[in-house]
Amino acid sequence: METKTIKAFGAEAAKAPLQEMTIQRRAVAAHDVEIEILFCGICHSDLHQVHDDFGGANFPMVPGHEMVGRVIAVGNHVKKFKVGDLAGVGCIVDSCRECEYCKGDLEMFCKEETTMSFNSPDRRSGGFTYGGYSESIVTDENYVLHIPESLDLAAAAPLLCAGITVYSPFKHWNVGPGKKVGVLGIGGLGHVGIKIAKALGAHVVVFTTSEKKFDDAKRLGADEAVLSTDANQMAKYHSSLDMILDTVSAKHDINVYLNLLRVDGTVVLVGLPPEQLQIGAFNVIKGRRSFSGSNIGGIAETQEMLEFCAEHNITADIELTKMQDINEAYERLEKGDVHYRFVIDMASLKS
Amino acid sequence: METKTIKAFGAEAAKAPLQEMTIQRRAVAAHDVEIEILFCGICHSDLHQVHDDFGGANFPMVPGHEMVGRVIAVGNHVKKFKVGDLAGVGCIVDSCRECEYCKGDLEMFCKEETTMSFNSPDRRSGGFTYGGYSESIVTDENYVLHIPESLDLAAAAPLLCAGITVYSPFKHWNVGPGKKVGVLGIGGLGHVGIKIAKALGAHVVVFTTSEKKFDDAKRLGADEAVLSTDANQMAKYHSSLDMILDTVSAKHDINVYLNLLRVDGTVVLVGLPPEQLQIGAFNVIKGRRSFSGSNIGGIAETQEMLEFCAEHNITADIELTKMQDINEAYERLEKGDVHYRFVIDMASLKS
Repeated sequence: METKTIKAFGAEAAKAPLQEMTIQRRAVAAHDVEIEILFCGICHSDLHQVHDDFGGANFPMVPGHEMVGRVIAVGNHVKKFKVGDLAGVGCIVDSCRECEYCKGDLEMFCKEETTMSFNSPDRRSGGFTYGGYSESIVTDENYVLHIPESLDLAAAAPLLCAGITVYSPFKHWNVGPGKKVGVLGIGGLGHVGIKIAKALGAHVVVFTTSEKKFDDAKRLGADEAVLSTDANQMAKYHSSLDMILDTVSAKHDINVYLNLLRVDGTVVLVGLPPEQLQIGAFNVIKGRRSFSGSNIGGIAETQEMLEFCAEHNITADIELTKMQDINEAYERLEKGDVHYRFVIDMASLKS
Repeated sequence: METKTIKAFGAEAAKAPLQEMTIQRRAVAAHDVEIEILFCGICHSDLHQVHDDFGGANFPMVPGHEMVGRVIAVGNHVKKFKVGDLAGVGCIVDSCRECEYCKGDLEMFCKEETTMSFNSPDRRSGGFTYGGYSESIVTDENYVLHIPESLDLAAAAPLLCAGITVYSPFKHWNVGPGKKVGVLGIGGLGHVGIKIAKALGAHVVVFTTSEKKFDDAKRLGADEAVLSTDANQMAKYHSSLDMILDTVSAKHDINVYLNLLRVDGTVVLVGLPPEQLQIGAFNVIKGRRSFSGSNIGGIAETQEMLEFCAEHNITADIELTKMQDINEAYERLEKGDVHYRFVIDMASLKS
């Protein structure tokens, strides 16, 4: 297979610092789009995978699944993109396209395993996929997103993972006018969740362990902010919320939040706490409540989310960093020291 | 308030053996129906409450919330019942009637607290309600059920709790033709669950820890029976079920069952395990799966269930016992030694 050598940043082994390396990208085939990556967001799951926290990691690993840039080449049969278009690639770069879930726009649940943007068996080139901490990517046009020109390009990058991760459950659980929605945690996911829930027309209540975040919660669009460690404040919200988006990746008590739900309400987990979560039987039986999870979203819904964000002028709050400063960014991310998402200015990779 | 003294069986204190006692029933008011109780089912939760397992129990306690019998008196304004009708009273005897849930036929989620058939503050008479281990009951007609004449009366009694507890989640989660439903546990709830799921048109897979129950599962209507302790058998059902009804009241691993669900599938708990249940984040995030609970059902849905059971000739598999043998029945119930529900022949209370 014809390939092209490009520069990238990656880890040679689990927990190794990231460093410059070269990787191969496949030549542009008939249905492929080649994108020069201009910005790439840093997701907490990049860090988890470099650390092999979930097991089964493949090295060298080039992370990155929030890529935006410009189309620099297209294959003969490409219909949706032309050279010069803004384009993005998120978490998914391929899937079987034949199963009921792929056909139903739920490629993240592909029965033959979704090909993720990095650290995933590559259906096309063999080996494993390399992500967005790199100069360019070659992706089948069906897995490439149009990025609306009106959005700030750097700040739009995190929408490709953080944005769809919160938008998809809001849509699935019918968040909109007349609904009261809780957002648990104000971080990379939570801060975009507040903006999107508000834009969808819901009444948004933010739960945080830090009173210092109240002002920011309201600036982001929250109608109310609640100190989750204060039982008196929490009691006021008993049985009042239709849905709670739980973005917390640390151990936490789900029962407290189940009890804030109305009848038929749902706590939807999008964070990835490493320990098992504990649930008392009565907390779901009373009120026919649910504890559910949600995993990014399909390609069509990601495009819909980008257009929704353009319409409401929603992007992430970001801190721009250089490719060479990635290890420092990871250290700060691990401490939660970022408001609220790092994005790499990929021009730095050229220098 | 005018009252009538009747015979009953109850416990004077937590964990005390049940013994004969007398209780007061209110006089029949304008909207009340008085029912001579002919049969009363024994539910595991009777035992839990007599043991004060959930805390806050009130004594003396007369358990019983699966009552069937004949109407012996009606108030002046009663429209739905006449003397001589078959009638039943289940778990709910009153509620506020004004809140959104009462108005929406979800009296079990009444915002002002549902009045349960026993051990519940009595809205009408003060004190606490007394249940069906008694000669008769006086209940507002809006909380009384018509029992179809075609059903075996003794075997129909458990439908008033066990039946509605499984029917309601099946309806809520759209169990029917083309759906694959798991039933976890074959006991008082599970055995009725198998019958009702099958009658609703679903493909029914039963999970049990005992291969000895396979024949019985199939006799009850299961299409397949699976030994839940055999990982090889379990693996065949990965991602295949739309909904799993979990009737287990002991500690058990929910994660195993979450992984048997298709995308958007739900494990619905109707058992009451005393310990917290553990759930791993990935097991709900993958496949957008849910862990939910369900709590009996409203009055209108209970009537619908009874008519559905009459149409499909469904009753519980019961062992008839005498009121005087209640303590022995409780001991056997605690050991799971009943196929599958005890029902008290209330004629024994007269002797």
